Amino acid sequence: MLRGGYLFYEVGRRAAAFAAEHPDAELIRMGIGDVTRPLVPAVIEALHKAVDDMSRAETFHGYGPDFGYDFLREAILRRDYAARGVSLDLDEIFVSDGAKCDVGNIQELFSSDAVVAVMDPVYPVYVDTNVMSGRSGRFDEQKGGYERIVYMPCRAENGFVPELPKERADVLYLCFPNNPTGMTLSKEHLKRFVDYARQSGALLLYDSAYESYISDPAMPHSIYEIEGAKECAVEFRSMSKTAGFTGTRCAYTVVPKAISARDTLGNTVRLRDLWARRVSTKFNGVSYITQRGAAAAYSKIGNEQVLAVVADYMENARIIREGLQQAGYTVYGGVNAPYIWLKVPHGDSWKFFDELLSGYHIIGTPGAGFGSAGEGYLRMTAFATRENTIRAMERIKRGSV
Amino acid sequence: MLRGGYLFYEVGRRAAAFAAEHPDAELIRMGIGDVTRPLVPAVIEALHKAVDDMSRAETFHGYGPDFGYDFLREAILRRDYAARGVSLDLDEIFVSDGAKCDVGNIQELFSSDAVVAVMDPVYPVYVDTNVMSGRSGRFDEQKGGYERIVYMPCRAENGFVPELPKERADVLYLCFPNNPTGMTLSKEHLKRFVDYARQSGALLLYDSAYESYISDPAMPHSIYEIEGAKECAVEFRSMSKTAGFTGTRCAYTVVPKAISARDTLGNTVRLRDLWARRVSTKFNGVSYITQRGAAAAYSKIGNEQVLAVVADYMENARIIREGLQQAGYTVYGGVNAPYIWLKVPHGDSWKFFDELLSGYHIIGTPGAGFGSAGEGYLRMTAFATRENTIRAMERIKRGSV
Repeated sequence: MLRGGYLFYEVGRRAAAFAAEHPDAELIRMGIGDVTRPLVPAVIEALHKAVDDMSRAETFHGYGPDFGYDFLREAILRRDYAARGVSLDLDEIFVSDGAKCDVGNIQELFSSDAVVAVMDPVYPVYVDTNVMSGRSGRFDEQKGGYERIVYMPCRAENGFVPELPKERADVLYLCFPNNPTGMTLSKEHLKRFVDYARQSGALLLYDSAYESYISDPAMPHSIYEIEGAKECAVEFRSMSKTAGFTGTRCAYTVVPKAISARDTLGNTVRLRDLWARRVSTKFNGVSYITQRGAAAAYSKIGNEQVLAVVADYMENARIIREGLQQAGYTVYGGVNAPYIWLKVPHGDSWKFFDELLSGYHIIGTPGAGFGSAGEGYLRMTAFATRENTIRAMERIKRGSV
Repeated sequence: MLRGGYLFYEVGRRAAAFAAEHPDAELIRMGIGDVTRPLVPAVIEALHKAVDDMSRAETFHGYGPDFGYDFLREAILRRDYAARGVSLDLDEIFVSDGAKCDVGNIQELFSSDAVVAVMDPVYPVYVDTNVMSGRSGRFDEQKGGYERIVYMPCRAENGFVPELPKERADVLYLCFPNNPTGMTLSKEHLKRFVDYARQSGALLLYDSAYESYISDPAMPHSIYEIEGAKECAVEFRSMSKTAGFTGTRCAYTVVPKAISARDTLGNTVRLRDLWARRVSTKFNGVSYITQRGAAAAYSKIGNEQVLAVVADYMENARIIREGLQQAGYTVYGGVNAPYIWLKVPHGDSWKFFDELLSGYHIIGTPGAGFGSAGEGYLRMTAFATRENTIRAMERIKRGSV
C-alpha cells in the first residue's frame, strides 16, 4: 500500500486552501517544477507546419512508428549523443510522451522480487511505482522508508553524493542533475556506479531530464559518456525542462542492445527487446505534430533558442541562490540544475513550507516529501518568471510579504 | 511468456517482404485500422490557435491537469453522455493519449490471480497485457488459448454474440462495435452482461472506440445506457477512429465512482480512486494542443464535420460489403462498424491473407491473428481512400490485379 498522497498533490492542496482563505495574497509558485516561458519560435513554426500537414490527405499522418519517427530519433542521436562522442543505434531510442511515464513503466520489466535502490531524497515516482507493483514491502516508520527498498542517503555531509549500496540491489535509480537537490555527479563518481553495476549484474536507470542545465563542462550529460555504461544503463531524457514541453509532452528513453536480462523461463534476452514489446503492446506513439515540434528544438536555430531559455532560467537560479544566501540561508544546487536546495534552519521542512506560504506567500516543496533524508531541506525551482523570482527574493530578504 | 509477435507487426512484415520482391505492385492496405482522411477544418483551426497560445507567455500552458482539461471533459460529458441520457460526473472522466494505453494499463489494478475473460476473436492488447503481467498461465495448444484465460467464442453460429462465461471470471473485456468482427450488441444482450457482473461481482471493461460508426438507432453507444452499468463497468473511448486522431493521440476512460474494489489489505476502495492514483503517478496528461483539437471535434460544427468523415468511411464499408458479396463471399459487419469480417472459403486465414496479397495486392488481417475463433475469417477495414476501396473490389470481382 502506498503511504500518503502524491507529494505535489499535497503541496497543491495546502496552497489552494491558503489562497481560498487569503484571496488577495499574490502567491509566487516555486514548488512544482513547471516551466513558464513560451515554446521557442522554431518549435512554434514547426508545430504550425505539422498541423497544416494534418489538414491535407497527401501529408496526413495516421499511426506513427511505435518507437518514434526517424526524423526525431536521428536528431536525438546527432545532437544529444554523437556530438558528445557517444554512438548509439536508432533502434535503441524510444520516443515517448513523458519521462515520468517511462520511468514509471520500466519497472514492469523487473521481477517482483527485484530489489530496488533509490537515492534519498528521491523523485517520488521511482518509489511509488515500485510500491504499487508490490515490490517494496510495507512502510517501516523506524527506517523512514519501505522495508524492501534500499535507500542511498544524500545529505550535505556526503556532498549529496550517494554511496554504493551495501546490501543487494538489482536496480538502481540515479538522477543527475538531481531532482530535488540540484547537485551533479562527476564522471569519477558515476564511473563507480557503472563499475558496480557491471560487477554485480545490477541495472542502472539514469534519469538525466535536466542535463541541459549543466554549466560545468567537466560534468557528464549522459551516462554513456562513462565506459561500459551501455552494458548496464538505461537513460531517460525529456523535452519538458529542456524545451518547455511540460504541456506539449515529448521525451525519450535509451535502452542499449548490449544490456541482457533473464525472462521468466530463464532465457537470456535483450532488455531492449522486452522494452520494445512493452511499448508496442501498451503504447501507440507520440503525436506527429508534437514530434515535429520536438525535432525543431534539435535544429541549429531551435537549439540556440532553447539554450537561451535555459540560460534565462539559470539566471533565476543565480538570483535565488544569491538572494537566499544574502538572507542568511545555506543553499545547494542551482549551478548545474534549475533546483535550489535550501537548508531549513529549524529542520522541519513541512513547517518551513507553511511559514514560507503564510509569511511570504511563496510556494516551495518540502524536502521531507522526497524522503527521510530530504527532511531539513526545501526545494525551490528557477522556473518562475524573472519578475516573480526577484519579488520572492525581496520578500525573503526583507522578512515580509 | 507471450506467444508469437504482435499481429500487426507480422502483417506488416509479410507485406513489406512482398513489396520488396514486387516493387511495381500497387498494394492496397485494408489491414491495420488506420484512418486516411485529414483532420477536419474545425480541429485544424483549434490546433493552430492552441499552438499560438503556446507561443506567448500569457497564454502558455505547462503541465495540464492529470485527468485532462475541464473544457474537454465537459464537452465529453455533454455530447457523448448527457445527449444520450447518461449522467456522469467530471471526475469520472480520464483523458489519455490512447485507448490502447488505457486498455493495456487498466489490468495493473487487478490482483495477479484475477481471472480474465475475453471475446474470441479479440483485440490482441486485452490478452497480451494480461500475459505480460503473468495472469494468463501458459499457452495451451489444445485449447488454442492461454490456460487461465476464459474465452467467449464469437462465430457465425452464435451470431458473433458472446455467451456468459460458465467458469469464474473476475474481469470481462467487451468490445462493441466489435473489432474485428464489426458486429454490435443489442441493449438486451448487453443487459445480460451487466446483470451477470452485478450478480457475480465481476468487472466489465467496455471498449466502445467505434461507437460513432453505429448506424442502427436501436444499438447502444455506451454501456451506461444499460441500467446498473455504472456499478460494474469501465468504458474506453477514443478519438482515433471518431475524429481521425490515430496520429494525433487522444482518448478517454470512464471509471464511475460507484464501482468498488478491494485493495491488498482487504479494504473496500473505489476503483476510480485506484485508477486516479495510477494516472497521477505514471502519466503526465495529454498535450494542451491536442486537447484543444479534441474539444473542437465536440463543437457543433466540428461534430458535423467529423460525422461526415465517418459517413464517408461507412460508404467504403458498403462498397466492400457489397463488392465481396457480389464476388461470392459471405461477409459480416460493416453496417455499424468500419470493419468487414469475411468468411474465408477454405478456412485458412493466413493462407487467404497470402493469397489476397499475392493475387490481388490487397492487405487484410487474418482472423487467426485475433484468436482461435477468428480462424476462418479475414478482417478488412473501411479506412482506405474511396479510389483504393473501389479498385480493391474491382480486383476481387474480376479475380485478378
